Amino acid sequence: MASIFNIQILIFFFLLIIFSILRPTQQQQQHPLDPLTPSELNLVQTILTHAYPTSNNNLTFQYVGLDDPDKPTLLSWLSSHSTTKIPQRRAFIIARINHQTHELIVDLSNHSIISNQIYKGHGFPLLTFDEQIAANALTLAYAPFVASVSKRGLKINEVVCGSFAVGWYGETRNNKRVVKVTCFYLDGTVNMYMRPLEGVTVTVDLEEMKIIGFWDRLTVPMPKAEGTDYRESEQKPPFLPPLKKITVVQPDGPSFMIDGHRVRWANWDFHLSFDMRAGPIISLASIYDLEKQIFRPVLYKGFVSELFVPYMDLDEEWYYRTFFDAGEYGFGLCAVSLEPMRDCPENAVFMDAYVVGQNGKPVKMSQIFCIFERHAGDIMWRHTETAIPRTIVREARPEVSLVVRMVSTVGNYDYIIDWEFKQSGSIIATVGLTGLLEVRGSKYTHKDQIEEEVYGTLLAQNTIGVNHDHFLIYHLDLDVDGDSNSFVKSNLKTTQVPDHGSPRKSYWRVVSETAKTESDAKIKLGSKATELLVVNPNKMTKMGNHVGYRLIPKSGAGSLLSDDDYSQIRAAFTKYNVWVTPYNKSEKWAGGLFVDQSRGDDTLATWSQRNREIENKDIVVWYTLGFHHAPYQEDFPLMPTLSSSFELRPANFFESNPVLKVKPPQDVMRLNCSILKVV
Amino acid sequence: MASIFNIQILIFFFLLIIFSILRPTQQQQQHPLDPLTPSELNLVQTILTHAYPTSNNNLTFQYVGLDDPDKPTLLSWLSSHSTTKIPQRRAFIIARINHQTHELIVDLSNHSIISNQIYKGHGFPLLTFDEQIAANALTLAYAPFVASVSKRGLKINEVVCGSFAVGWYGETRNNKRVVKVTCFYLDGTVNMYMRPLEGVTVTVDLEEMKIIGFWDRLTVPMPKAEGTDYRESEQKPPFLPPLKKITVVQPDGPSFMIDGHRVRWANWDFHLSFDMRAGPIISLASIYDLEKQIFRPVLYKGFVSELFVPYMDLDEEWYYRTFFDAGEYGFGLCAVSLEPMRDCPENAVFMDAYVVGQNGKPVKMSQIFCIFERHAGDIMWRHTETAIPRTIVREARPEVSLVVRMVSTVGNYDYIIDWEFKQSGSIIATVGLTGLLEVRGSKYTHKDQIEEEVYGTLLAQNTIGVNHDHFLIYHLDLDVDGDSNSFVKSNLKTTQVPDHGSPRKSYWRVVSETAKTESDAKIKLGSKATELLVVNPNKMTKMGNHVGYRLIPKSGAGSLLSDDDYSQIRAAFTKYNVWVTPYNKSEKWAGGLFVDQSRGDDTLATWSQRNREIENKDIVVWYTLGFHHAPYQEDFPLMPTLSSSFELRPANFFESNPVLKVKPPQDVMRLNCSILKVV
Repeated sequence: MASIFNIQILIFFFLLIIFSILRPTQQQQQHPLDPLTPSELNLVQTILTHAYPTSNNNLTFQYVGLDDPDKPTLLSWLSSHSTTKIPQRRAFIIARINHQTHELIVDLSNHSIISNQIYKGHGFPLLTFDEQIAANALTLAYAPFVASVSKRGLKINEVVCGSFAVGWYGETRNNKRVVKVTCFYLDGTVNMYMRPLEGVTVTVDLEEMKIIGFWDRLTVPMPKAEGTDYRESEQKPPFLPPLKKITVVQPDGPSFMIDGHRVRWANWDFHLSFDMRAGPIISLASIYDLEKQIFRPVLYKGFVSELFVPYMDLDEEWYYRTFFDAGEYGFGLCAVSLEPMRDCPENAVFMDAYVVGQNGKPVKMSQIFCIFERHAGDIMWRHTETAIPRTIVREARPEVSLVVRMVSTVGNYDYIIDWEFKQSGSIIATVGLTGLLEVRGSKYTHKDQIEEEVYGTLLAQNTIGVNHDHFLIYHLDLDVDGDSNSFVKSNLKTTQVPDHGSPRKSYWRVVSETAKTESDAKIKLGSKATELLVVNPNKMTKMGNHVGYRLIPKSGAGSLLSDDDYSQIRAAFTKYNVWVTPYNKSEKWAGGLFVDQSRGDDTLATWSQRNREIENKDIVVWYTLGFHHAPYQEDFPLMPTLSSSFELRPANFFESNPVLKVKPPQDVMRLNCSILKVV
Repeated sequence: MASIFNIQILIFFFLLIIFSILRPTQQQQQHPLDPLTPSELNLVQTILTHAYPTSNNNLTFQYVGLDDPDKPTLLSWLSSHSTTKIPQRRAFIIARINHQTHELIVDLSNHSIISNQIYKGHGFPLLTFDEQIAANALTLAYAPFVASVSKRGLKINEVVCGSFAVGWYGETRNNKRVVKVTCFYLDGTVNMYMRPLEGVTVTVDLEEMKIIGFWDRLTVPMPKAEGTDYRESEQKPPFLPPLKKITVVQPDGPSFMIDGHRVRWANWDFHLSFDMRAGPIISLASIYDLEKQIFRPVLYKGFVSELFVPYMDLDEEWYYRTFFDAGEYGFGLCAVSLEPMRDCPENAVFMDAYVVGQNGKPVKMSQIFCIFERHAGDIMWRHTETAIPRTIVREARPEVSLVVRMVSTVGNYDYIIDWEFKQSGSIIATVGLTGLLEVRGSKYTHKDQIEEEVYGTLLAQNTIGVNHDHFLIYHLDLDVDGDSNSFVKSNLKTTQVPDHGSPRKSYWRVVSETAKTESDAKIKLGSKATELLVVNPNKMTKMGNHVGYRLIPKSGAGSLLSDDDYSQIRAAFTKYNVWVTPYNKSEKWAGGLFVDQSRGDDTLATWSQRNREIENKDIVVWYTLGFHHAPYQEDFPLMPTLSSSFELRPANFFESNPVLKVKPPQDVMRLNCSILKVV
């Protein structure tokens, strides 16, 4: 009796396991753009380790991600209303195999490597966390380094190190794959970035995993720990007066539906994916047109293609800090778990993602995206009409939008990446900068002492906040009502009026230029009043206007480095704020596929030298959202968020205001709330 | 018994009346910057009608507002911790008396006119609603106009008119005080702005209140009513899918305190006033410094000084449309009641205001301001630290800010004016544009038919959205930690590195220039990377940095009209985005005190020609937030809000991040809510 019972339990558990294995595929159909699942990642790992057994091969996975189906294949699948078999799933892998960079494609259906190429050009793949950790550990155990720490009267067990990409500064020989390790000091704070171990640099060869360089060049006082910790537990009174509780409530739950990675909300439908390198990828965003009663495509794909963060300090320990946060560190790899109620509001839902470790095994990253409806108190549209006798008209609609958020913490800095969708058709991409500055240790304790160039602001005693920039370049593959689009610059041009032609002497008019080739579409913002449009020259409104979307930039910051500067050559995409290219599946990464120590031979700027035709083609817009950052004392020890954004806004896309027919919310919604749980 | 009872009732009511009269003064002490109360407005009216009895004088009140105490007087009162008697209350009145413009000052304590000057210069005061209504009524009863309406097959009782300021186009003789009346058509819509009675213009002499000009120059088809009404009741299915209920809840009420017109919230303390011309005025904004344990001044006064809205159409009916919405129409006078739950979120509180009618009697305007805490889901600051062995640090603080909102509906357009205060010390001024375009009737029904200049976009059949601009100039009397301030341009300058000086070839450094005189501070944004700072050269942080605030513009749009154009001469303040002047009590209105038909002799540009010293002085920053508006079909028949903003952000004002010591919200706040009432 007992044994039968045990067998029943075993059968039960067996079925349970089978069920839980099968469940994911039963629950939802996979979308061709879904990121690789843990089992797909495991499969890739198995296939590669089978091909290159680690017993006699040195194999590390630097990048694993979905190899997107070709655009025509995907569009054809979509046009079949997703009823046909999904296009072949493939993985794209960048691996270091026996000290060479391989680009591989694995077919996930027939479990085979269908492409395997050794990359011989300049530049190296993403750094893995594992190799950074190993390089840091090497440094901490390195006797000369330990001596340097000791010489300064510091405790080695309070030192934490970071591995920094070294850039390229004109070397002509083939470089080794190395990082520079630079270290920081805890000892009474978790904010070690405010306590740099200035003057000591260790170079680590990542392939040999050994130290190949060590410099202890100068000693400056260690900035003090006091006042640097940002944890609540470490703060002493007085505190700012606490605010009364405030929360957003959706008694009937959210208005969006998430089906796998497909998000539907209000009149929007899009796919949200995750990539180790790019972070969030918005694909196939289309909006329902009430009048035409169809979904109309807007954005085939949008993501942060690269981040360039050059520091403006020429000293030995600093000159090379010209980081490419996506191509060197992985903007997605550096994503962090979002904290409910703090990183995202009460009504947010969260989504996990998977990356791979250096060994190729999937690693779950929890709560990497949050998705929520934003009810900020803004007005979607309104009007009060008082001019009509015996009538007062007042109509107003509150704005509610949908936000997709990820935070990537690339070492010291936290980048808040928001994609916001409005019912009016606007997509707003916002970047918030917060986290910790990269500061330089210094002997100075007061500005009056400073007579040399210190490359920044004295933020606290012995602490210089070094000047730098953040340039985020967005890949925006707009498909406005179809994939054949043109880029139009609508210049607002002052026109003189001939004498006696009118009492006016001038006015402006819109002079539109359609960019024929790539060189026509390179734009430095700021000098001219220009509206930037992507139009579909094959589709018109009833009035005869080409349907379009506008790019409304809110920042026109561009790189201030000289064109011949090595890091500027690598980040040549920052020379213009806007570029337009014809769609090319391989042109994803504005700084190149292999960015670590790249030499600028595979960038948006080099691709564009071909000056290809872009009129009435499938085009991609590249926009750089830039920040110049000269630090202020308020940024110490942790900076309050500084935001900027751009808007993609329909421009003759609809026949008329698409949110006129939004029902106002039910009137006088008052909630009687009791607090269930306050921890 | 019955009679005694009646006497008791009478006594009760008498006491009740006395009590209600006394109550306002008992409840709260008046602040010297409070707007004039109804009883003060009544007093002004009584004093002026006593001086100029309307039996034998033609007296109209064009503007009545507080005559601010002199700044030294007010600062001295403040430094006494507001314990001394408040400075003398005075009213400033602009009246038309027997067809002359008078500037009067009334002392409200001794009930006397202490100044009465006749203005003989160019320009006229604000238009009153009463005279606009009268001019419109005259037009509707004017036989030739009625005939024009009839000739077009339209019904006179469906016509609604508006009075338009006429501008100045180089006339050298003294102009009459006139408006041009232009009309619109209802007949099946409340959105008459989409149905202009194109081609008919009536000129009305406001002083004689008679028609002095009538033109019926051309006939174009009346755009149809269909598709123009924006009222919910008039919409036909299909509708956009309704969103589920979403609301913001503060179970313990708001965190701000409003005492009369003084608002205290978190670390902020400011005064909110209302002015017929400017709308909201933020005064005496100061922020509590946790470290110094004092409130430190930031903004002595901030308000929208003028709005310039030039249309870009040269035709007879349009060339003169170059409006100054504050100086001609009264940006405060055009404020509209805000609708709870739609114009402002659920947690908003509202404030009323008073204006005067043409007869000088106070008119209550209900719910003209709303004040609410904004919980938009943004992150105030955050960091995740993963580099420390055996420790994961994650600290994040959600952003909650305070918003003061007013909406001014100047005829067709609705301007949403937000002043947002952040605990980090930032003040963000945002302008949202919504409401109705000013469109031109046209014979065209498709773009292909258009071969002439039409000055805009064909939005719907027979409807051209005319190109125009909106320039809002803010008067920002910053008093950064005291009233002696300097304006600093921190230019980010590319610096070439000599060969072999560093592996780098370039970097940028901050080259700061302190503006000595007004001409140093005129700035056209866009061409250079410059940080704009107001610093207190007499106050330093411990590190030796001058305490300051930055102005961070998000729009650099400036006027595109030629300098010699008449309306540009009147709006010469739009030539630069930024100006700085020494404080001068009389320099409030960037387009001049008398803007209607002004000739540009009293503008920010003329004041600045004196090129006064502005270093280490009490200075005022003027910033123009501009929008170029080339309409798109989505703006028809009512435009979704388009926003822009600027930020005043502390820059070495605090010793360190002032929101580090914000307590995180109580964790896991879950509310059990039941809906009390859904109407």
